[in-house]
Amino acid sequence: MIVELISVGTEILMGNIVNTNAAYLAEQCTMLGYSVYYQTTVGDNEKRLSDAIKTAMTRADIILLSGGLGPTMDDITKETVAKVCGLKLIEDEKVREHIKRYFINRKIKKITDNNWKQTLVPEGAKVVENSNGTAPGIIVETKDCKIILMPGPPNELTVMMEEKIIPYLKKLQTNVFYTSMVKMSGIGESYVENQLMDLMKEQTNPTIAPYAKEGEVHIRVTAQGKSKEEAMALVQPAVKEIYHRFGEFVFTDKEDVTLEQNVIELLKKHGATLSTVESCTGGLLTGRLVNVSGASSVIKQGLITYSNEAKMTLVDVQENTLNEYGAVSEQTAKEMAQGAVKRYHTDIAISITGIAGPEGGSKEKPVGLVYIGCCIGKHVFAKEFHFTGNRSKIREASVANALTVLRHAVLEVYEGKVIENKSEQ
Amino acid sequence: MIVELISVGTEILMGNIVNTNAAYLAEQCTMLGYSVYYQTTVGDNEKRLSDAIKTAMTRADIILLSGGLGPTMDDITKETVAKVCGLKLIEDEKVREHIKRYFINRKIKKITDNNWKQTLVPEGAKVVENSNGTAPGIIVETKDCKIILMPGPPNELTVMMEEKIIPYLKKLQTNVFYTSMVKMSGIGESYVENQLMDLMKEQTNPTIAPYAKEGEVHIRVTAQGKSKEEAMALVQPAVKEIYHRFGEFVFTDKEDVTLEQNVIELLKKHGATLSTVESCTGGLLTGRLVNVSGASSVIKQGLITYSNEAKMTLVDVQENTLNEYGAVSEQTAKEMAQGAVKRYHTDIAISITGIAGPEGGSKEKPVGLVYIGCCIGKHVFAKEFHFTGNRSKIREASVANALTVLRHAVLEVYEGKVIENKSEQ
Repeated sequence: MIVELISVGTEILMGNIVNTNAAYLAEQCTMLGYSVYYQTTVGDNEKRLSDAIKTAMTRADIILLSGGLGPTMDDITKETVAKVCGLKLIEDEKVREHIKRYFINRKIKKITDNNWKQTLVPEGAKVVENSNGTAPGIIVETKDCKIILMPGPPNELTVMMEEKIIPYLKKLQTNVFYTSMVKMSGIGESYVENQLMDLMKEQTNPTIAPYAKEGEVHIRVTAQGKSKEEAMALVQPAVKEIYHRFGEFVFTDKEDVTLEQNVIELLKKHGATLSTVESCTGGLLTGRLVNVSGASSVIKQGLITYSNEAKMTLVDVQENTLNEYGAVSEQTAKEMAQGAVKRYHTDIAISITGIAGPEGGSKEKPVGLVYIGCCIGKHVFAKEFHFTGNRSKIREASVANALTVLRHAVLEVYEGKVIENKSEQ
Repeated sequence: MIVELISVGTEILMGNIVNTNAAYLAEQCTMLGYSVYYQTTVGDNEKRLSDAIKTAMTRADIILLSGGLGPTMDDITKETVAKVCGLKLIEDEKVREHIKRYFINRKIKKITDNNWKQTLVPEGAKVVENSNGTAPGIIVETKDCKIILMPGPPNELTVMMEEKIIPYLKKLQTNVFYTSMVKMSGIGESYVENQLMDLMKEQTNPTIAPYAKEGEVHIRVTAQGKSKEEAMALVQPAVKEIYHRFGEFVFTDKEDVTLEQNVIELLKKHGATLSTVESCTGGLLTGRLVNVSGASSVIKQGLITYSNEAKMTLVDVQENTLNEYGAVSEQTAKEMAQGAVKRYHTDIAISITGIAGPEGGSKEKPVGLVYIGCCIGKHVFAKEFHFTGNRSKIREASVANALTVLRHAVLEVYEGKVIENKSEQ
C-alpha cells in the first residue's frame, strides 16, 4: 500500500516554517508498514493543489493532506479536494456543535463568521474530530484512493493522527506490523550503533534501526506478520537481546513512554519526593517532569536560582563557595542540591548549573560546561558535562542528562544496582 | 522566475530526519524574489527521481536538487540528471584534486574507491566547490531550465548556497523582495483577519498574509521592487497601517524578535526585576524567558509551587485562601504574585495556576481553567482564562498568555498606556 503526503501552506513553501508534519507523518506511515514514495508541498493555490492531488491519485492508495483547513479565505484544501472528487460541500451539524462548544468553553461570545466555513464537509465524507482546534479532519473515500485531510498546526495534527487516523490506517493494512521502541539514556549513539551492527546487518524481519534524540538513543525494532502475535513473536527476541547488551541504560521498550515518565514512575515506586534546583535551564527540567500527569505526588516544588543571590537565599549555597569556586562549579551544584533537600524536606534534589552561552564563557569555563548535582539520602555528588551547540541545544542536553543522572542515582542508591560508565555524550 | 525544490533521500521520505534543507532553500529563494510553487521529496530511486525532474522541468525555470551526491551506490542524483538531460559523465580533474586534498588535510591515508565516483560530472556542467565535504555541487544549464545540484548534509548545503549558489541566483534575478513580519499577542487570529480583510484583498504588491502561533498572530508583509529600497518603500505603509489598527497589541515587526525577547527588553528598559511563580506550567514560562540571552539582569529567581505546601512556604499564600477558594482561583493567583514581590524584593511578579489536565478537572473548575496573576507596584490583579486542548497545549497557551499579561501590565502601569480588551484567546 502506497501513501503520498501533500503538505499545503504558503508558509511552508516560502520556508517560513520547517515542515515537521511531513517527517512525523512519514515516520508514522512507515511504522504502519506503508510505503511513502513522494512528499509534495504546495501553497494555498487551487490550480496547483488540484494538480498535486490529481497526480497523487494516479500513483498512491492513500493521500495524506495536511494544512489549509482553517477558517481563513486562504484555506482551500477541503474545497479543492471536493472539486477534484466532484463532491458538494454540505454543512455538518456535529461540527457546528463542536465549534460552538469550543468557543463557549473559551468564554468567547462573538464567533466571527468565517469560523462557520469549517462546518462544511464534502458529501459522504467521514468527519474526524479535532480535539485541539476547530477545523475537523476529513476522510474522502473514492474508488481507488482514500484521501485524508488533517489540520496543519502540529499540535492538532499529531493528536488527530494518534487518536483517529492511525487506527483507521491500521484497519486498511493486511499485514500487521508490530514495533518496539527500546529507549536508552546516558549512552552514546555511535557506541550503541557499533554494539548493534551485527544485529542491524543480518535482520530483515524484524528490522532494527537507531534514532538519536537529545540525550537519548532509541532503537526501533519492527516486524511484520499475519497477526499481531506473529509480529510480536518476531520482535521480542531482538528486544530481549538489546536489553541484555545494554542493561540499566534501557529505560523502556514502549513507544509512548518518555524518560521523564519513567523517572516519575521510579520515584513513585520508592515513595520518594523530589526538589529541582535549576540555573541555566531556567525551569525546563521541572517543566518536563511536571508534564507527566500525576507528577504532583513526587514534585512539591522547584527552584529557579538564576542569580547568585537566589542560590543563597533559596537553597542556602554559601557565599564562600560562590566566591571561591564560582556559580558554575561542582561545589555549587552539590550545595544547590543539598540545600534544597535540607530546606524543603524532600528525599532527593537534582540541580543544574552551567554556561548555556552565547555569552558568559571563558577559557577555564567555556560555553557548554554544565554541572549536574544530586543529593539522595546521605549521598551528595555532582557530574561535569561538556555540551556543544547553541544555547537551546545546551539547555536541552542539560535537561536530558539531569533526568539520566537522577534515574541512575535512584537505581544505585535505592535498588543497589551497579551502572558502568558507557557514556559518550 | 519560478524555482522548484527536489529533496532526494530515503531517510527524509521515511521520516527519519526532518527536511530542514527545504525550508532553508525556500526561504533563501523567496528572499531573492523567486517564487517557489512546489517542493517534492523522493527517495534514492532512479525512476521516481527521473519523473520528478522531468515534471519540474515543465513548470520551473530553476530546479534546486539536494541530496544523493555522495560516494555510496545509493547516491544517484547526478547520474539521473545526466540521463534526463542526455549528457555523458566525464571526469573532472579539479574535483579529483579537491578530494585528494580533503583527505590529506584530515590525515586520512586510505581513500576508498567509491570516493572517485564523485569526480564524475555531466559534460558541459559548471562545477561548484564544496568547502565542507567531498561531493561538488553541479549546475546544468539546459535551454529552458537551470538545474542546480547540491549535497544533502545541511552544513555542506548551507555553506555552498551562501558562497556560490546565492550569487549565481542573484545574477539571474532582476527583482528584489523585502519582507516585514508584524507580530501581535493577546488578540485572536480571526479578529485580526477580519480587521485586515480589506488590506489583504486589495493588495498584490505588497502581499499581506496572517499566520497563527500559540497565543500570537503574525502578519507577513512582502513586496518586490527593482531595488531593496523600492521594495521596502512598498512594505512600510502597510506595516504602518497595521500598527495603526492594532496599536499596543503589536510587539514587533521583525522576523527574528520573539515575544519573550520583547518582554525582557521592555523590563530592561524600565530597570524592572521579575519573579515568576508557576504551578501548572511547572517552569515553562521561566524557561522561555531565560532562553533570551542576557535575561539574568531581569530575572533573579523563579518559583515552581506545584503543591499547596510550596505555595505557602515559598510565596506565603494563606492557608485560608487555599481552603476557601482553592489552589486554582483568582485569589490564589494574586497571593502567589504578591507573595513573591514581598518576599524576593522584585518589582514585578507574574503567577500561573490552573488545571492542565487530563485529570483534576471538575464541573466548577474544568480542565483548561487557568488564572494568571500579576503584582506590579501597588497593583495586584489576576485574569481568568479558559484554554482547550491537551495538557501540553493548555500549558503552552498559559505561558504565551502570561507573557502578554506581563507585557500589557508594564505598558499600562509604567507607560500609562490604555489597552482595550480585543482578546479572543
